[in-house]
Amino acid sequence: MVVGLVETAVPAAKSTVSSAVKKPTTLSSDPIINVARGDPTIYEPYWKKMGDRCKVVIAGDEFMSYFCNAMNLCWFLLPELDNAIRTLHRVVGNAMVDDDRFIVVGNGSTQLFHALLYALSSPDMPEPINVVAAAPFYSSYPEETKFLRSELSKWAGDANCYDKDEPYIEVVTSPNNPDGSIRGTVVNREGGKAIHDLAYYWPQYAPITSKADHDAMLFTFSKATGHAGTRIGWAIVKDKVIAAKMVKFIEVSSIGVSREAQLRAAKVLGVIADDCRNPDVKGENFFEYGRRLMSERWGKLREVGMKSNGVFSLPNYPRDYCKFTGEYTDSNPAFAWLKSKEGLNCENLLRDESKIITRGGPSFGVDSTYTRVSMLSRDVEFELLLERLAAVKGTVNGS
Amino acid sequence: MVVGLVETAVPAAKSTVSSAVKKPTTLSSDPIINVARGDPTIYEPYWKKMGDRCKVVIAGDEFMSYFCNAMNLCWFLLPELDNAIRTLHRVVGNAMVDDDRFIVVGNGSTQLFHALLYALSSPDMPEPINVVAAAPFYSSYPEETKFLRSELSKWAGDANCYDKDEPYIEVVTSPNNPDGSIRGTVVNREGGKAIHDLAYYWPQYAPITSKADHDAMLFTFSKATGHAGTRIGWAIVKDKVIAAKMVKFIEVSSIGVSREAQLRAAKVLGVIADDCRNPDVKGENFFEYGRRLMSERWGKLREVGMKSNGVFSLPNYPRDYCKFTGEYTDSNPAFAWLKSKEGLNCENLLRDESKIITRGGPSFGVDSTYTRVSMLSRDVEFELLLERLAAVKGTVNGS
Repeated sequence: MVVGLVETAVPAAKSTVSSAVKKPTTLSSDPIINVARGDPTIYEPYWKKMGDRCKVVIAGDEFMSYFCNAMNLCWFLLPELDNAIRTLHRVVGNAMVDDDRFIVVGNGSTQLFHALLYALSSPDMPEPINVVAAAPFYSSYPEETKFLRSELSKWAGDANCYDKDEPYIEVVTSPNNPDGSIRGTVVNREGGKAIHDLAYYWPQYAPITSKADHDAMLFTFSKATGHAGTRIGWAIVKDKVIAAKMVKFIEVSSIGVSREAQLRAAKVLGVIADDCRNPDVKGENFFEYGRRLMSERWGKLREVGMKSNGVFSLPNYPRDYCKFTGEYTDSNPAFAWLKSKEGLNCENLLRDESKIITRGGPSFGVDSTYTRVSMLSRDVEFELLLERLAAVKGTVNGS
Repeated sequence: MVVGLVETAVPAAKSTVSSAVKKPTTLSSDPIINVARGDPTIYEPYWKKMGDRCKVVIAGDEFMSYFCNAMNLCWFLLPELDNAIRTLHRVVGNAMVDDDRFIVVGNGSTQLFHALLYALSSPDMPEPINVVAAAPFYSSYPEETKFLRSELSKWAGDANCYDKDEPYIEVVTSPNNPDGSIRGTVVNREGGKAIHDLAYYWPQYAPITSKADHDAMLFTFSKATGHAGTRIGWAIVKDKVIAAKMVKFIEVSSIGVSREAQLRAAKVLGVIADDCRNPDVKGENFFEYGRRLMSERWGKLREVGMKSNGVFSLPNYPRDYCKFTGEYTDSNPAFAWLKSKEGLNCENLLRDESKIITRGGPSFGVDSTYTRVSMLSRDVEFELLLERLAAVKGTVNGS
């Protein structure tokens, strides 16, 4: 059973190896289901079906230079990717990408988050700038902000409790990770800066209600299409000075971003945009497919996984008019934000009673009655997850 | 003329666009030759000639997961790349890669340098650890160490002058960038830590005299084969705890390394190793080709570029027995470390008299009579470089 070994090797980066998953016999022989990380393998069958249309071929002598486009502020951004990103946002209508906006590519949006902390801070300030996010917040923000002990920025916790009269950066994730809520800034002081992480603002997860138009917006290939192994993220930035500082950060951190990865992202994003613009495309476009799949999973989770035991509850999301689909749609977040009855530790309960590994509330700045469950696993894992959730009795409460 | 624009966009990351280079007419209409950065486009013709053998094809549904190999400490390292790296080092004999050594892949060796600073420092220490390198040192080390103002490590300058009784990390580049010298540690105090950057320890640049066997060694795809745009570097590490901390750094910085880039590196390194092991291969193997090319360039530089004017001098390198080629060979460094006559500012002289952009001595911790010139440009640029060097009179001295 390969599954458990990931735990040993990667405490914070957990996975399930679904090919090893079999129908459980006894609990002790059951494989661990690891839905702590949002590994987006759910979309594999779609891309498999696409066959040669998304294939990329790279010759031995391509992309040898450090430079992609010397004319561009972001000199390591492949022009094809720049074009594909802008085209897709125009087609989906989820972000403003007018020509005066700068696109900065990164090794995942994680690197771009670091780049923005660098760009929005200054060595001339007497104190590190405060970085806040409203709880529950993405569990990696605190660690990403703190781990190098930079004198440029420091983690300052829950934005709802922020009362210092000091410079700050508010990180706004919308739809939010972990709880799927639609969010705006909460501090709203003059001179405050914001990073808008819009990783999940795509039609399969939430209604597209307007073109986002913030100073600094982050997107990631992994959550948009499921290609997490490619490590491509992009920022859309209004201010040239901020964009240039981000480019500098990525130069000093990694001298740019793999061209092969950028080419692949450009190809896949381009195919999606083409299909969305062409109503005659055979079968569903990617977002229709993703929305149907996510909607089915959420339906099953609420029916099968929740209703039978009364141990857990889930947030409810308002329907809203989605300009992309042209109809009222539901939110189908990438994570289920599970709350157990008071007095229970939700993460421990799932681990000890059901061998389900999740990420508990304290990682997200809230209490342990909450835990986060990825909705993006492969089918076989998701079905097993439902089965086990339905069987939870809530009598074990590992603390 | 595209060339100059790179200067505006990327002050520290300069390039020449060789397709724009024409035979000069008057100096004012001449293109700038930018040899400040070691963009290794010299090898393009070799890889073009290799055709389909180095081609990679990636289907739309490949590499979707964050995880490459859950069994491995470095869970984002593609097993094919791990295998190709170890095989090539065994074939070349330039580094010890026994099975108890850990391979950590990074977004270029630049990211791995940052990862090592993190891994070799500790938040429990009262002061940041000192980072030193013997001058002339790689110009990016100070900036990479300083730019985030980390409390974990700080730049402490020339290792030759280091006299503090405090913990330190010495960075040793061998063959050295910028001057091509073969180096070891110079501080040599008990408890001192070292990073060995062996980016240029390949047969085309220097005789392979022994298997390097240091605690932490860095290599990079860009300088080994010329694939700078791929952004792949690797570390060979003895200590499991250090390797695990590096993996953690790369997880928090970028959640791993692009799979597409790793696949390509595995393919190219694999082809080189195969050819080196197969004496019946048609034509030259990559290292024979590279060594011939570099040797020809160095011959021309000493003949044409230097001898005519007496303004410049170059270091001399001892011949040594190369275990890879089985003969005594010369060093043919990736950079020419040019010294001008006393009283001249070498970088400014070349810029003002000859429109040659180089990186001057002060960036490397030494005086301005020195400057670094990349030997890895495309043929057309290199020929133009020789022509202009030969014509330098040394009468202009921009300061």
